[in-house]
Amino acid sequence: MPIVSYVGEADADAEVAAIYAEIRSAFGLPFVPNLFRALAHRPSYLAATWDRVKLVMAPGALDRRTKEIVAVAVSATNGCDYCVDAHSAALRRLGMDDAAFVELMAVVDLFNGLNALLGGLRVDSDPGS
Amino acid sequence: MPIVSYVGEADADAEVAAIYAEIRSAFGLPFVPNLFRALAHRPSYLAATWDRVKLVMAPGALDRRTKEIVAVAVSATNGCDYCVDAHSAALRRLGMDDAAFVELMAVVDLFNGLNALLGGLRVDSDPGS
Amino acid sequence: MPIVSYVGEADADAEVAAIYAEIRSAFGLPFVPNLFRALAHRPSYLAATWDRVKLVMAPGALDRRTKEIVAVAVSATNGCDYCVDAHSAALRRLGMDDAAFVELMAVVDLFNGLNALLGGLRVDSDPGS
Amino acid sequence: MPIVSYVGEADADAEVAAIYAEIRSAFGLPFVPNLFRALAHRPSYLAATWDRVKLVMAPGALDRRTKEIVAVAVSATNGCDYCVDAHSAALRRLGMDDAAFVELMAVVDLFNGLNALLGGLRVDSDPGS
Amino acid sequence: MPIVSYVGEADADAEVAAIYAEIRSAFGLPFVPNLFRALAHRPSYLAATWDRVKLVMAPGALDRRTKEIVAVAVSATNGCDYCVDAHSAALRRLGMDDAAFVELMAVVDLFNGLNALLGGLRVDSDPGS
Amino acid sequence: MPIVSYVGEADADAEVAAIYAEIRSAFGLPFVPNLFRALAHRPSYLAATWDRVKLVMAPGALDRRTKEIVAVAVSATNGCDYCVDAHSAALRRLGMDDAAFVELMAVVDLFNGLNALLGGLRVDSDPGS
Repeated sequence: MPIVSYVGEADADAEVAAIYAEIRSAFGLPFVPNLFRALAHRPSYLAATWDRVKLVMAPGALDRRTKEIVAVAVSATNGCDYCVDAHSAALRRLGMDDAAFVELMAVVDLFNGLNALLGGLRVDSDPGS
Repeated sequence: MPIVSYVGEADADAEVAAIYAEIRSAFGLPFVPNLFRALAHRPSYLAATWDRVKLVMAPGALDRRTKEIVAVAVSATNGCDYCVDAHSAALRRLGMDDAAFVELMAVVDLFNGLNALLGGLRVDSDPGS
Repeated sequence: MPIVSYVGEADADAEVAAIYAEIRSAFGLPFVPNLFRALAHRPSYLAATWDRVKLVMAPGALDRRTKEIVAVAVSATNGCDYCVDAHSAALRRLGMDDAAFVELMAVVDLFNGLNALLGGLRVDSDPGS
Repeated sequence: MPIVSYVGEADADAEVAAIYAEIRSAFGLPFVPNLFRALAHRPSYLAATWDRVKLVMAPGALDRRTKEIVAVAVSATNGCDYCVDAHSAALRRLGMDDAAFVELMAVVDLFNGLNALLGGLRVDSDPGS
Repeated sequence: MPIVSYVGEADADAEVAAIYAEIRSAFGLPFVPNLFRALAHRPSYLAATWDRVKLVMAPGALDRRTKEIVAVAVSATNGCDYCVDAHSAALRRLGMDDAAFVELMAVVDLFNGLNALLGGLRVDSDPGS
Repeated sequence: MPIVSYVGEADADAEVAAIYAEIRSAFGLPFVPNLFRALAHRPSYLAATWDRVKLVMAPGALDRRTKEIVAVAVSATNGCDYCVDAHSAALRRLGMDDAAFVELMAVVDLFNGLNALLGGLRVDSDPGS
């Protein structure tokens, strides 16, 4: 059960309602994701978070698919079900299939494993790296 | 200081020396990275790890640059200096500049933050994700 | 499903029953939380853990509310549902509302994000800090 | 060694220089912390991060000292030296002494320990929490 | 809900079916664990993972029970329910009872707690360690 | 640099001095480890921590070597240099050699990797586990 309630669209004041409308439109979804409805208890933080999502996820030196891949890799590392669900769904919409998900998770597996192994062996960085 | 010694190239037996030669050649480096020299105390595990690195990092549905980006994103999340150093150097060789690193870290920042926030609010996954 | 059974109040020996009674009284709860009932398979560890909870959570330089806030912040970072549930309930009893929870989680979001970003950029500590 | 260079104050363009001036003034520091100088390779992200720090750390339902305590607790949990150094220095300026730091870390110790123990025992949340 | 489907035994090609048969036999289970059925979307990675499990979990300087204990300790630390469930079941089959699980989790509790406390106090390693 | 000073043996009051003497004797070390000297700013917490170390690390269903192995495995997972250094030194004194350390870290590698992979694939626990 969530710790805070979700602010429904009917209960949103004008500022929140405008952000909700923009979120639905940007994601092409018929609803506002629960994350944003939970944050709406502090409209200023909801606004800052939504602006940040737009800024950070916009294509630049890294394209959108690469950014969604990073989202899933980080969220798998941290065991965040909500973000894994949301961003693997986004990758599905970008055409990623089951075999590619396993390929991505193989990289996540490799580095989470080596990160801990290197933490336990205390290996020094190589020259020039 | 590392917990185990590094097996030097002069001390390597034939099996280990063959793997070392392949690693130097594959990475185009004049030395064998410390990670592999530490693992050489168990040649069977060194061999399995090197085979796995080749399998997992080979281009497939994800290209090599994307896999190096995932390597850095996961290693930043876990705070593994060795892997961050090694794989950001690899990305440098693939042309990534300072602004692109900051762009990548902005995605890492966004999702590590939201993962913890969602852990604390216990928000339910959205329908359809 | 839990890995160990919960030691019921009817099955507790005198040592465990005395700790159970103290826990119920201290928390003002009509039941003994599952955490303690799981630990009761080792009465010495149950006793040590309960003594430690009392010592660590007692008001000192930090008051009780601040300590409950730290409990929730750490547990959100680690994604521990049990502790998030238990200690956000404690904060509710101390008067924290939905907007304050979002405000707390904004701090948790900020630092989990920056911690990982700094891990990936390997920024040096500033002079004097 | 950091992965990206620090953008020096002499090399900053007008937008970055204005943010730098505001940061120095807000923190009462004679220099700009390295974190912000690293982010300056992407001025839009530097600006967004600085705005967010101001929004999130401003006193509200939680006062500034409590927010700095959460910053240190989260950063200790993640092992981020930079943030531990920066925010424990901030707490020093707010009057926290050695005994209070140990008291804070006792809470961090307690919950990091219990979070993992509960992850391993898979204990169910209690009714009403 | 899992992100990828499980490759059923009826749908497995000859390579995957052979690995499935070996897994069922090795574990003495009437079914193939979901982990391996998820990885079967990439048969080469399934094969590499299964070979690795056999190599790493084989008794050597550490016996099988100790390796299962490490599996549970690491998985508790990371909050991975799947691995906690699978490897605590393996320890049950090796005779571990409820009191011993609590004894193991006490060690996990102790070090997860101290790891974070030491991250927050930034204590230097002792001479000779 | 540590966040708090170390309480030197000359500066310790009678209560702390008695604990220091016991620690030196128990570990057979000519000095008191920095961890305990940092905690001595709160003598009650130093005492509780030392009592807990004795209780948790005492041989029971798990012997001392297995508990030190768990200490290193957890500390590698969390990247805690202090604990890795201290407890790998303890394992050295118990006779663990370089090859055995690599064997231990192979298990740590395996499960940290799989924990994250399973977090990203959201695989369900198997029946009976």
